[in-house]
Amino acid sequence: MNPTEVKREIIRFENGQIKRAEDTIVTEFAVTVKINGQELMTMVCTPEHIEDMVVGYLASEGMIRRYADIDEIWVQEKEGFVHVKSSKINPFSRELQSKRYITSCCGMSRQGFVFANDALTAKKMNDIRVNVSLDDCFRLMSEMQQSAATFHNTGGVHNAALCDVNGIVLSRMDIGRHNALDKIYGHCLKNDISIGDKIIVFSGRISSEILLKVAKIGCEVILSKSAPTELALQLAEELGITTVGFIRNRSLNVYTHPQRIVNID
Amino acid sequence: MNPTEVKREIIRFENGQIKRAEDTIVTEFAVTVKINGQELMTMVCTPEHIEDMVVGYLASEGMIRRYADIDEIWVQEKEGFVHVKSSKINPFSRELQSKRYITSCCGMSRQGFVFANDALTAKKMNDIRVNVSLDDCFRLMSEMQQSAATFHNTGGVHNAALCDVNGIVLSRMDIGRHNALDKIYGHCLKNDISIGDKIIVFSGRISSEILLKVAKIGCEVILSKSAPTELALQLAEELGITTVGFIRNRSLNVYTHPQRIVNID
Repeated sequence: MNPTEVKREIIRFENGQIKRAEDTIVTEFAVTVKINGQELMTMVCTPEHIEDMVVGYLASEGMIRRYADIDEIWVQEKEGFVHVKSSKINPFSRELQSKRYITSCCGMSRQGFVFANDALTAKKMNDIRVNVSLDDCFRLMSEMQQSAATFHNTGGVHNAALCDVNGIVLSRMDIGRHNALDKIYGHCLKNDISIGDKIIVFSGRISSEILLKVAKIGCEVILSKSAPTELALQLAEELGITTVGFIRNRSLNVYTHPQRIVNID
Repeated sequence: MNPTEVKREIIRFENGQIKRAEDTIVTEFAVTVKINGQELMTMVCTPEHIEDMVVGYLASEGMIRRYADIDEIWVQEKEGFVHVKSSKINPFSRELQSKRYITSCCGMSRQGFVFANDALTAKKMNDIRVNVSLDDCFRLMSEMQQSAATFHNTGGVHNAALCDVNGIVLSRMDIGRHNALDKIYGHCLKNDISIGDKIIVFSGRISSEILLKVAKIGCEVILSKSAPTELALQLAEELGITTVGFIRNRSLNVYTHPQRIVNID
């Protein structure tokens, strides 16, 4: 397996002293996905849970509907290829895929807006399946950060965790913020773990694209250490998703749909 | 002009109290670029300096070589379109463009690797045009952060500054990390500001894509508050770029090509 971090000799300046030191550096790994022999695209990721990531990605993009839609999937780890065989690829999604281009870091493509429109009609979360207390918010964020810290002190990755009110069910990290969510989604599809009754806890900013990914996955609550964007909040309002941000030192902000936070409504 | 941030009423929990408060939220704005009437792609960005961003993007992707290659450019601010007329678009770059797909946040596409190969042969920085002291590193990072802080306290943007050893020449921010660099590059192309003798100071992680952008822009030194990735450092070694990271509280790491840091070599 390709390493998720490597040691490297660097020059460190600290306390007025220059010294050579060994540092831990996070890796980036390019994976090209081929569907039925045809190149779909290249993702850059942290090289672990690659198969889950591709499954989660294909499902969240609507190219497959369930794990069983995939006939075969295998990872050529060294060469950086993931081969998928499937006779059930949604032909409409392929059409969109080929037109799509994302350039902003954490940005949303035109397709994102198409999906947003889909989601507005199709996936609006009117139910309240999840209730979270303020204490849950602080505890889950703290658990996510502790579990992440044991894996990585390189300062270069995003962490996501799928939780219920009792704690973390599944935790994934990646240099790409959506990859971490795709890895969670793929794992749940493969192992029949329900998502709609759970909570996403996330280390990074809630951009429109992350919000849409949460909606596509079918989660109704996202907790983040960081800030949301306005476009993400507009989508969250429409989609019925509860967004909580800036969870730090016993303070937090509830931006949308506070009805799922028990102490507030 | 579309606002770069908006006010929004939120629910704030702090010091054991729940209250309604007004918060400042950063905006995301989708811009679709049309070249000679044909849709090229959609970028999501912070809505300021949009024309510069598109110019910088086209140049860094090799679609144009200089600002004069553009016959006309105009921004339809409200609708989110940038129209470019040019008879000098590199046809080879268009070919690559249509095949390209980036999915990782801050990730590198297959085209990125193609460019990396180009850059390895074409743009290796063997000269030392820039010399920076450790004090310069701390001072420039601090100036960049101060200038950024006056614009944004929303916690959701990346900042980049073009500097010489005397201070900031130009500073830009964006929710998309490469957009901030494209805005700088476009402005310099339009206004004939030299870049090769200057320094990029950056708030975010040095990913492979950021490193390649710095190489394409023609800068030989990048200073960052954050961590680099291993792939970025490999590229920096090859391309002859000095990378300095984790510039915090009078400490920093020099990862590659320390010969431009005067106190060290």
